[in-house]
Amino acid sequence: MEDNLIDFEKGDGLVPAVIQDAATGEALMLGYMNRDALHRTLGTGEVTFFSRSRSKLWTKGETSGHKLLVRDVRVDCDGDALLILAERLGPGVCHTGHRSCWYRRWDGVQWVETEAASFDAEAVYGGAR
Amino acid sequence: MEDNLIDFEKGDGLVPAVIQDAATGEALMLGYMNRDALHRTLGTGEVTFFSRSRSKLWTKGETSGHKLLVRDVRVDCDGDALLILAERLGPGVCHTGHRSCWYRRWDGVQWVETEAASFDAEAVYGGAR
Repeated sequence: MEDNLIDFEKGDGLVPAVIQDAATGEALMLGYMNRDALHRTLGTGEVTFFSRSRSKLWTKGETSGHKLLVRDVRVDCDGDALLILAERLGPGVCHTGHRSCWYRRWDGVQWVETEAASFDAEAVYGGAR
Repeated sequence: MEDNLIDFEKGDGLVPAVIQDAATGEALMLGYMNRDALHRTLGTGEVTFFSRSRSKLWTKGETSGHKLLVRDVRVDCDGDALLILAERLGPGVCHTGHRSCWYRRWDGVQWVETEAASFDAEAVYGGAR
């Protein structure tokens, strides 16, 4: 079973899953998976999270079309964090229009944007971010 | 303040922090930080986590000498996940002796090791893993 090494209990049924761009190595986002989300991710080959705010499964790209296709799935030493290398469909993963959700860096004084948005989030997501 | 964009409340005072090798882009590990851990990480330039199992701050490498020197700190769109690009001192970050904690991949049937250990964990950590 895909979940036999995974400690879902430590995080109340959820484990963090880091998404890394399989082509470039860029870290793109972090979401959470429960057993069902992991099962669906492995079964369909499309990254599926459990949304903590909406309390339901959420296939990345179901609104935007910007799906994440699974290329490699890793589990860490303690079984409490996943790493997924994925092929990114679309110009970016972030609901703000950025390629990566980690688009702000600490410059020693404040958080600053590292890059401009790569797509028009309003056009893609409308009211359904 | 470094924590003004960060939502510590969502995770009961903690946010996950992904560590990526600044030189190679390899994803190395995931730990958790509270406000103090982030403050110390930024202040000292050495990655410091909050250990959930020991309930105290834990500077990575304090036992092994395999410290992680901060090269870049990112916050994500929702302010609930950190990404730290770090210079890795030592052959690996994992208490098992592997370079990355994500040394096992799902091959479709089972979890398999992707690489051998890069150092002798027993010699480095002894009983203090």
